[in-house]
Amino acid sequence: MPGVVILGSTGSIGQQSLQVMENLRTRGYELNLVGITANTNWDKLQKQKETFQPQLAVLTGREKEERNGFEYGREALLELVVRDDVDIVINGLVGISGLEPSLAALKAGKKLALANKESLVTGGPLISRLLDRPGSGEIVPVDSEHSAIYQLLRGYQQQDIASLVLTASGGPFLYTPREEMKEITPEKALQHPTWTMGGKISIDSATLMNKALEVIEAHWLFGVDYDKIEVMVHPESIIHSLVRLQDGALLAHLGEPDMRVPIQYALTGPHHVGGEFGRLDLACVGRLNFSQPRWADFPALELGYEAGRRGDSMPVVFNGANEAAVTAFLEGRISFLEIASTVGGIMAAHDPFPLTDLEAVLAADRWARQKFEEEVG
Amino acid sequence: MPGVVILGSTGSIGQQSLQVMENLRTRGYELNLVGITANTNWDKLQKQKETFQPQLAVLTGREKEERNGFEYGREALLELVVRDDVDIVINGLVGISGLEPSLAALKAGKKLALANKESLVTGGPLISRLLDRPGSGEIVPVDSEHSAIYQLLRGYQQQDIASLVLTASGGPFLYTPREEMKEITPEKALQHPTWTMGGKISIDSATLMNKALEVIEAHWLFGVDYDKIEVMVHPESIIHSLVRLQDGALLAHLGEPDMRVPIQYALTGPHHVGGEFGRLDLACVGRLNFSQPRWADFPALELGYEAGRRGDSMPVVFNGANEAAVTAFLEGRISFLEIASTVGGIMAAHDPFPLTDLEAVLAADRWARQKFEEEVG
Repeated sequence: MPGVVILGSTGSIGQQSLQVMENLRTRGYELNLVGITANTNWDKLQKQKETFQPQLAVLTGREKEERNGFEYGREALLELVVRDDVDIVINGLVGISGLEPSLAALKAGKKLALANKESLVTGGPLISRLLDRPGSGEIVPVDSEHSAIYQLLRGYQQQDIASLVLTASGGPFLYTPREEMKEITPEKALQHPTWTMGGKISIDSATLMNKALEVIEAHWLFGVDYDKIEVMVHPESIIHSLVRLQDGALLAHLGEPDMRVPIQYALTGPHHVGGEFGRLDLACVGRLNFSQPRWADFPALELGYEAGRRGDSMPVVFNGANEAAVTAFLEGRISFLEIASTVGGIMAAHDPFPLTDLEAVLAADRWARQKFEEEVG
Repeated sequence: MPGVVILGSTGSIGQQSLQVMENLRTRGYELNLVGITANTNWDKLQKQKETFQPQLAVLTGREKEERNGFEYGREALLELVVRDDVDIVINGLVGISGLEPSLAALKAGKKLALANKESLVTGGPLISRLLDRPGSGEIVPVDSEHSAIYQLLRGYQQQDIASLVLTASGGPFLYTPREEMKEITPEKALQHPTWTMGGKISIDSATLMNKALEVIEAHWLFGVDYDKIEVMVHPESIIHSLVRLQDGALLAHLGEPDMRVPIQYALTGPHHVGGEFGRLDLACVGRLNFSQPRWADFPALELGYEAGRRGDSMPVVFNGANEAAVTAFLEGRISFLEIASTVGGIMAAHDPFPLTDLEAVLAADRWARQKFEEEVG
């Protein structure tokens, strides 16, 4: 029975992963839940522990205090990931904190079900070098877009592929005129039209930063040049992404906007097993719409391509500055439009350096956050 | 250099195949045109001979008369197909006459680029038995729907697939109320909204007979039960067909409605090479629509499932009766609505028998046509 660890089990991806495993279990597909982890939410983790009976539950953001029954600290998380009885690591952590566990899982030969896009955005070169080594694990993407492309590329060779086409819902402000974007509040930005997600990723969807991060993620995941990664707006989020073949045709992966489907595929792939969720009836949906992104009105997208093309530490700075900016926006310290403009300013001030190791990545990240505080604070 | 034969080179598929080969040649992808064939149109065949310089040109429907430079008769076509220097046989023949050359090509180990759907509709059991024998050739479908599914299934196993979804443009009468269908003339029925095709297939698209035939074709081509073949109306004909995975998600193949793309894939597969045609810009298309077929108003579709499920000689009778009915409709002998009702009546009168060999197929076909003349004549 494959052993599974869920990093960030109290978050959106983590909770849905537990649902998927429970659903699979009722259908006779057994997985062994070795461990779950959370940052600080011990009440929720306690409940999950009682319901799903993992062998271990780790709290990384608390000190060992009055409560028993948990492991504590980041070291405990890193030890959990590399255990012999673990086969699949679901990384549902938010932000750059997900990189180190991703590296540890891959180094230990695990299958990494990756929802933490920052792992590839910031640590792409490190992960890429690691995957080239014999004995390393493999990544199965959990992002719906990348899961779609991953599934579409099965049976195809690089030479047959002209480009990858990431679809973007366009977020809640798809049709909002630029001049009205000044007024956007955190409350409005958190209301995503098609997906139910955590706060950080909801804001990133509203700015299109999320799509920019996904472009960089796709670059590392599929080894494709930035010139060969397209973005297309598709408000219904039914087509999760597409692959353009050399002959001009497109392959698409379609489904209900439900993260449980790509999570399940990451667990059961290469096989697709029946689920209680996700059966798409296109005739019932009736209509799908497509358009070009409004590049000028959502400058984050272009910034992502720029960061990716520049390479080295620039994507780390892009990501770190954005994490800081989203926090500042949610705290009311900067406006919606200032998210992208501040990130752009910080990128312009950055002198990129090679990412030789994890420490270099973290240094670039710290630099970006410090710079952000200097600019905004 | 792979040797190619085009059966029915003066027809719609044949002409487009020559275009594709010419286009591939200018891009450095060389194929050797061994032979072309036509039924009676020697002026057009003569012109093609001069332009494309095949080694042989065969007229099957003429006697050896005043003109030199051609081979004559059906035997010449069957000899052409099995020549040692032939690797790929494009079967663009119309109707049941395409079955015997398909069998000959497969028996001789050729790659059969199959546009003649009647080969599988009428000879499915024979072809299926033939393909099971070692040394037999393989079929690469040219119908856009089946080419789409063929490409989507690469890298997937039967157990991962829940169903196949064939898209139907709905034809020129998608929105025509049943009571107005009495008035449909051949001229109107020949005007297909999205595809440029021959006369027979245009009428079949208007009645949805074409989709019914494709359902039976898909059954034999992909070895899938009729319960697992869906039909969905999609007026833009951009999504050429879909595959439903066990987890409820769908894979789709999208492209401009241009037969040259599947023809080219049949020639170059498993590789996709760049072409001068077919690059799809979905953002430019803007919108795709989907709906359920109007089963009650287009009874041909249900008849096709019935014929397929009944099996044995019933699909042959379904196809033969329809061929006779389409001819009669184009000649003004029966009305549009009588196409399906007559076919249904002939099926009801048929006592199916097993298809032991080609002669059994042809006997069922003759029976259907004779029955048609008795009913209508």
